[in-house]
Amino acid sequence: MNNTFSNELKALCKDVNKALCSIDLLKTNCNSPDEKVIEAENYALSAGGKRIRPILCLAFYKLFGGDNDISEIACCLELMHTFSLIHDDMPEMDNDDFRRGKPSAHKAFGEDIALLAGDGLAILPFEVISKAALSGKISYETSAKLINLLSSSAGNKGMIAGQMLDLYSEDKAVDEAYLVKMSRLKTGKLLEASCLFGAVLADADDEMLKSARIYAENIGLAFQMVDDVLDVIGDEAVLGKPVGSDKHRSKTTFADIYGVEGALSKARELTDCAINAIEKYSESEFLIDLAKYLTERNA
Amino acid sequence: MNNTFSNELKALCKDVNKALCSIDLLKTNCNSPDEKVIEAENYALSAGGKRIRPILCLAFYKLFGGDNDISEIACCLELMHTFSLIHDDMPEMDNDDFRRGKPSAHKAFGEDIALLAGDGLAILPFEVISKAALSGKISYETSAKLINLLSSSAGNKGMIAGQMLDLYSEDKAVDEAYLVKMSRLKTGKLLEASCLFGAVLADADDEMLKSARIYAENIGLAFQMVDDVLDVIGDEAVLGKPVGSDKHRSKTTFADIYGVEGALSKARELTDCAINAIEKYSESEFLIDLAKYLTERNA
Repeated sequence: MNNTFSNELKALCKDVNKALCSIDLLKTNCNSPDEKVIEAENYALSAGGKRIRPILCLAFYKLFGGDNDISEIACCLELMHTFSLIHDDMPEMDNDDFRRGKPSAHKAFGEDIALLAGDGLAILPFEVISKAALSGKISYETSAKLINLLSSSAGNKGMIAGQMLDLYSEDKAVDEAYLVKMSRLKTGKLLEASCLFGAVLADADDEMLKSARIYAENIGLAFQMVDDVLDVIGDEAVLGKPVGSDKHRSKTTFADIYGVEGALSKARELTDCAINAIEKYSESEFLIDLAKYLTERNA
Repeated sequence: MNNTFSNELKALCKDVNKALCSIDLLKTNCNSPDEKVIEAENYALSAGGKRIRPILCLAFYKLFGGDNDISEIACCLELMHTFSLIHDDMPEMDNDDFRRGKPSAHKAFGEDIALLAGDGLAILPFEVISKAALSGKISYETSAKLINLLSSSAGNKGMIAGQMLDLYSEDKAVDEAYLVKMSRLKTGKLLEASCLFGAVLADADDEMLKSARIYAENIGLAFQMVDDVLDVIGDEAVLGKPVGSDKHRSKTTFADIYGVEGALSKARELTDCAINAIEKYSESEFLIDLAKYLTERNA
């Protein structure tokens, strides 16, 4: 990881964290018992994480010439992602007691509040984006496009469909095509929405949107392959969760199908395709390095 | 219940049910395992119910001069309501095995799929509304207003806050002010959004919006009082769920605070206030009768 990239990544991550802490609708002020759900949401949001989704949004926005502060809207992608993590960790789903080294939301706040906190974070992005339109920060048309992107990526035919395929794959042998479809839906769709968010906010033309989509599709799939490999060979201390959890629940992963080396090699090929889609744009270095970083990461 | 009202109510309910069945995004077509979540959503939606929220939207739209087919958008209120019912029924919340006489979604489909079905229905309205804007059926500005209304009514400071207050009230003595606040948030906010949806879609002016809001606030609170009374004296066969479930979980209700007769009398007062807010508009008969019907209902 070169220094320029590393510094830029850190700076963007800091911007995102700052913006997450400034979201008005996540502020509590009266100690009323209902605010506990917002506390739980902030708890889950502050557990850290790489903030890849808002960073992708910010980077594509900049790549395509945007120069306003859109960090609050970029955070909507993290809100939606965090909603899915809270519900995914719950006993009826993956039943994970830890997330990024801290107790999961349902362990820290109880299952009832975690359920509602996930719900709250699934709905909040739409309030943030529509409010930005009503207050004149973005156009009404842009808000409709962003909301359509986010709801379709996260909903029944997007992330939720991917979670269903994931549930269904337990204790079953599934093939490569199934895993690719599952990954494109479960993690790929929201990563794609993240790249397209930046492009739409920058009023990108069709060619740019296409580039963003190809980049997203490829890093999305590579991202899942690396995740699967890290679940086999990763370091628990760095990952913040037990390794081997997929094996434990008898889920087929890319590491099973391609082997660890094969999956990493596929991930590198996909990364090259992602880079190829955007390197024609000037100042694409950050996104090129980001694609490489996502493949080479150890957590 | 006079015949004209009864027929109009039935006709509107039929329109809503038809529109619910026509939502493209709820159609399944390929027997892929991920579509099971959409089946669960359709199951919960087809359990019946009075369709009060979309009917309020349609009635206010007509009252304020609207004459397009907005039934799909009106259904968004039912989608959001049904999401909350699915999650409310789950073991970590109210743990209700039955809903409207049929097994709850988590009993029929399992807790994992029910969790995701609730998530899907919470996100879907935003996809339906933004799609209507992108296809030119409603203006971008209207879509931003509707999405802001719906997300703020359902989210952290709306319905979810009400559900938190409800959770917190278990095994505690709470006072009248607490119950009123809880009811305004838990059921009132979405009922208010329903009335305002119709008004916004009809391009209502500020005076009309105010009338719709006053009507909504009053019928919302009356609705909850009647619900509480029916939980004490209702007929299980008509209600489709066990009576006394609030008592069973040691929740204070309006029936405890005012007594059954007192709560019904308060509900009638609130109904008069609701009627008072809209009777100045021509053709307000349906909404007047609807307010009365909600207080006099037995299920």
